This record gives sequence, structure tokens and C-alpha cells, in this order.
Amino acid sequence: MKTTAIIAEYNPFHNGHLYQLLKAKEETSPDTLVVLMSGSFTQRGDIAVADKYTRADWAINAGADIVLELPTVYSLSPANKFAMGAMRTLSVFGEFTLSFGSESGDLSALEMAVDTLGLETKEFKELLSDYMSKGYSLAKARTMALDNPVVSEIIGSPNNILGVEYIKAVKALSLPVSFHTVKRRYSENGGLFLSSTEIRKMLKQGEDYSKAVPPFVKLKDIDRKTYSSICLYAINNMTAEELERVSNISEGFENRLKKLTFSSIEELYALTTKRYTKSTVKRIIASATLNLTKELVETAEENEPYIRVLALRESRKDLLSFLGDRTKNLYLKASDCPADSVYKPLIDMDEKANRFLSIVNGEHNKILDKPSFLR
Amino acid sequence: MKTTAIIAEYNPFHNGHLYQLLKAKEETSPDTLVVLMSGSFTQRGDIAVADKYTRADWAINAGADIVLELPTVYSLSPANKFAMGAMRTLSVFGEFTLSFGSESGDLSALEMAVDTLGLETKEFKELLSDYMSKGYSLAKARTMALDNPVVSEIIGSPNNILGVEYIKAVKALSLPVSFHTVKRRYSENGGLFLSSTEIRKMLKQGEDYSKAVPPFVKLKDIDRKTYSSICLYAINNMTAEELERVSNISEGFENRLKKLTFSSIEELYALTTKRYTKSTVKRIIASATLNLTKELVETAEENEPYIRVLALRESRKDLLSFLGDRTKNLYLKASDCPADSVYKPLIDMDEKANRFLSIVNGEHNKILDKPSFLR
Repeated sequence: MKTTAIIAEYNPFHNGHLYQLLKAKEETSPDTLVVLMSGSFTQRGDIAVADKYTRADWAINAGADIVLELPTVYSLSPANKFAMGAMRTLSVFGEFTLSFGSESGDLSALEMAVDTLGLETKEFKELLSDYMSKGYSLAKARTMALDNPVVSEIIGSPNNILGVEYIKAVKALSLPVSFHTVKRRYSENGGLFLSSTEIRKMLKQGEDYSKAVPPFVKLKDIDRKTYSSICLYAINNMTAEELERVSNISEGFENRLKKLTFSSIEELYALTTKRYTKSTVKRIIASATLNLTKELVETAEENEPYIRVLALRESRKDLLSFLGDRTKNLYLKASDCPADSVYKPLIDMDEKANRFLSIVNGEHNKILDKPSFLR
Repeated sequence: MKTTAIIAEYNPFHNGHLYQLLKAKEETSPDTLVVLMSGSFTQRGDIAVADKYTRADWAINAGADIVLELPTVYSLSPANKFAMGAMRTLSVFGEFTLSFGSESGDLSALEMAVDTLGLETKEFKELLSDYMSKGYSLAKARTMALDNPVVSEIIGSPNNILGVEYIKAVKALSLPVSFHTVKRRYSENGGLFLSSTEIRKMLKQGEDYSKAVPPFVKLKDIDRKTYSSICLYAINNMTAEELERVSNISEGFENRLKKLTFSSIEELYALTTKRYTKSTVKRIIASATLNLTKELVETAEENEPYIRVLALRESRKDLLSFLGDRTKNLYLKASDCPADSVYKPLIDMDEKANRFLSIVNGEHNKILDKPSFLR
């Protein structure tokens, strides 16, 4: 089976995603297009603007054959762990092509960046450690330490960073994966190709974003006050010892969180430093609220990946037997996972994140008992 | 010192409360009028419509000399434990008069009710146990089992029930307390004397309640969605074992709470039965969200009471030395309590409840670091 995979968040799905998906199909001609999508929380530490089943449906509507969930332990991780988790999960397909969007649209430039990063000189390492000791984040320190303006520019763009991390992960895991990249399209304000960030901003401000998304994408804004209040409630109620165990928290950040009694989310966001970027702080807030621990991330990393189906094209039920032949850890709904399984706490975390989103949206039982496949 | 005490919730303070307070002063002529007030949560299981310092100020404005906090472990308890906790706390004053509002306004009728309830016959006990086995709450079963229409009527009204419980607690603790009751005033719809329940309902519906409260009482409605969402989040995240330890939960109610995955507060309220009244269910929800455990209630019951000052009339600083002479457990602010004190977890619970309310109200740091006395 010739497979092309896309790793996505679709928060929300927009014309740029549609363009990338159609280009990937056109240029790689797969039998099967699989999308691996973040569930209820995204890599920037945001709660998603729509639940994972709705977002998975968008991908099927756009032409994907099957949508799998990127586990919460990976979606709420820095780019390198996000990419490693995604590639491990997709490895169930064996040989495949990974198609991703990039600012450069130039695969060889991205591969060169990976090679350059791999050839870290003594001088580079010293500079890196120097910038990090000054409080810069790894990504920022790396860009600053590189004496290579081309590579620096490449790894300074968010989509490129992910592309680089995918290539690094494939090398590290020695996977039989080839790459395909689509240059990101972008329009000025009000055009057809806006970023998810811009669309979320328009949604928040009540502006008309409909030109930038396919007609099947309908959104309502998340209830930010409820989301913030739950996070504040949870973090206020945790001890420093409990926070220390939370994923993404390191170097005494738990003490910074406990030094103050936070009563607004803005106070939490104000904990941003050179090293703790806004995305890092937001991932920490989300992870703490979910009580997503380092131990749980390790459980995922130390075991074979598990596969959770969020949506499947009606005519492609064959993919279930294909996947069932290749892994024992295939789950169509949460209750398929036995209570004593090593995967149970991971699936529970995905469910908890899903319920959290439904509570924030005030969506009652709409999502919770929905079987997770066959539309 | 001639002291008169009032036990109150002031949720919100209204003309009926003002009338009762003025009548108590006029008819008992005390040197000191003390109010013991529920903090952030009330006996009906509601989060208060205003923070405890604001509500305490109302009482000072109305003529009280000092306002103490009824600890959260007691305010979120059934009437008998609420009354016992209140009387134990007030016992720091030694001899005093307790003044309370009642539907009957007839102290001797209330005392008769207490005596009748104390003389429980074998037949009464059998009937009581019979009604309880049919699933009725203790209060309801008691009313049904009593072959005394006068007493039944008395203990069928909410203010009378509390009066009866105060008298019972004073007897049980052999305190040197005398009683004074003020007949509750009540007007029809739109009048000067409305109940707190009616005022909260008008507030919720955006109607003008201002005629029913003194001019110093200004309210904004609580954010019910945020409150409900935090409760849902918390209960969804607790295990049956954790819930079993929560105050007010008994007889396997933790399993009923875990049988469903709740995604709306209405589903939780629907757990009401003959025995689990709406107030009981609401107290359970609040207690679970605060993680207020049975163990914590026992800590309070097994130790001398602690005294927390919420508001003090400027000219009555003498009351601080009076109280300081009578108890070692006097706290003007939370940080006055040492970390190794047996009272620390109780004070922490009061603080947690206070922060919870400020998070729901989105009131940022307004309340949290406020010193708790001297206005």
C-alpha cells in the first residue's frame, strides 16, 4: 500500500491545509492518505477550537482516508518530542511519504539544515551553552549560535522547524520514510490563505473568517474565561511537589508557579522569560491542569505506540484490518483499552483532555460517548 | 462584657437581616454585637454572591462590632453540624445571647420542639428508621415520624430548623447561652422584605432588587457557567476512592458520581433523591471541588475552635485583646497561622474557598492579599 501521511493540528482547518492536502495527493499519488492530528490540545499549548472528532471530520471531507490521534502526551510537547512521538506513531504504516508544509518549500534546504545541525562543532556547542546560560530557549539559542545565515533563516520559521524535526526523527529512528514538502501559501489580510493564528484571532474578534476556510468548517469561539478559570483553579490547588512531576516543568519552574497565588491567567502568562517562551508556559499550564506527568510521557516513550482512530472514510474499512494486522494497540474507542493495559493511563489522558474541552465548550454529552470511527 | 451573637450567611444581606440585627440590639442591649458568618460557601451548598470580606463589611455597616468567619468545614455541613460548629466557635465569648430569626418568632415553641425531639419514643424511632429506609432525608423522615402537628410545623421551616439546632447544640455543649428570636418579616413580591433566595433569583434575571436591600449592598451575579465548569472538571478528575473521602458523601454516593461522565451541572443536580436533597447534592459538589474531606471535618471537631476575624469596627480594637486573652487560635490573616499548626489545613481550606470564589468572579488579586481586619 502506497501511503502518504500528514501531521496536523487543523486548529482550525483552512484553505492552506486544503491546498497542502490536495498537493500532497496530486504529487505523491498515494493509495491511502493518513492524517495524524493533535487531539484536544495543540503544540502551542492551546485548547483546540473544536473537538477532535469534528476536526478529524474536516480532514475526511478534504480527502483524507483515515485520521489518527496524536496522543496528548506528544501534542503538548516541544517540537522535537512532538515530532518523535508523531513519527513513532506513524511508523505503524511501515514505508510511507511524509508530506508537510514549509515556509521554504525546499526539501534540500531543510535536509541541509538537519545535516548542519547534526555536525555540531565544539565552537557551536560552546556558543549554544553560553546562550542557554543567558536564559534563551533551546530553539532561540540554536539559531543564535549557528554561524550559517541560510540555516538560521530556515530554522527560524515555525513550519520549517517542524519539518526539520520530522527529518531528524526519521533519521534517529531509521524509518523507511521519504519526504515531500509543499510551500506554504499566504495571502495578505482578508485573503484566501490566512494562518490558523489569524483565523483564531478573527474568530475571537467576531470578524468574518469564512473566506479563509472550506465551507464545511464552522466554528464557535472557545470560552476563554472558563478555560482560564479551570486552569487557575487547578494550579492554585496543586502543591509544588505535584507541579514538579508535571510534563514540561523543569528547573524549579514549579516554585515560580507556587510563589504567587494566581487569580488571573495573565499573571501566569507573565511568567514568560527568554527561555520559557509563551508556548512553553501555555503547555505547562495545560499539562498542569490535566496533571499530565513526566512519568506518563515516559510510559508513552518506553512502549510501542498506540493507535487511536478518530475518523475513517466509509469506503476504507480495509484500513482497520490493515492496522489490526500491524499492531495490537489499535483502539477505536476508549473503552476498547483494558483497565490493566499499559496504554490505559495514556488513553485516559486523551479522554480527560476531550472531556475538559467539552466542559469548556458547555457541550454536555455531545462528544463524550461518541464512537470514534466510521463516518 | 454583654454580648449578643448572630449566626448568618448574608448571601446577600437584605432588609430582613437589617431588621433582625437592629431588633436584636434594641431588645438585648449588648455591649458587643458579634456576627459569625459563613465564608465563601453557604449551608445550601452555594458559592456566595460576594466575597466574605465584602459581606462582613455589610454587617459592620449595619451595626455589628465584629464579624468572624464560620469555617468552611462547618458552613458546608448539614444543619446540625453547621449549628454545632457555630456554637463551638462562638463559645470563645463565654456567656452571651444568641439572637436568630425564625418563622415562628416564638422561642418557647422552638424550645418545646427541642424537648419533644429529645424525648424520642421507641415508636418514633421505629417510624424514623422506616422512613429513612424508604430513602427520605433525616429532616424529612423526622417531620413525618413526629405525631405532633405543632412540632412538625415548627421543624418544617428552614429558619426554625436552624433555631432548633442552635438550641440543641447549646444543650449538648452545656453552654451559658440564652436565646432571643425575631420573627421573620416577609413582604409579597417586590416588597421591602424578600428572602435571600428571591433576591438571588432577581439578580440572576437582571431584575431590580434594590428596594429589598440596604443602600450599601451592591451585587453582581456570579458566573454560573464558570462555577459549574470548575466543579465538573474537578469531579470528573477524581477517582471513586478520592470522592469517598469527601465530606457529606456517604452510602456509596461516590459510585453514583463516578457511574457517569458528567458534562453538565444539571446531570449532577439530577442525582437528587428523597434522601439526597438538592442542598445535600450541592454541598457534595462544592465539597468535592474543594476536596473538603471527612478527615478535615474531624480535625475541626476534635480541636478547640479557631477564630478568624473578617471585619472589625474601627473603634472596637479592644475586641482583639479580649479574644486574644481567651484563645490562642485567633487569626487575623491566613499567614498568621504557623505551617505546623493543626489549624493550618483548616485555614488553607478557607483560603482555597476564598480563591475559588475570586477565580469564579474573575476578580484577580482584589481579594487575595487583603488583610482580614480593620476597616
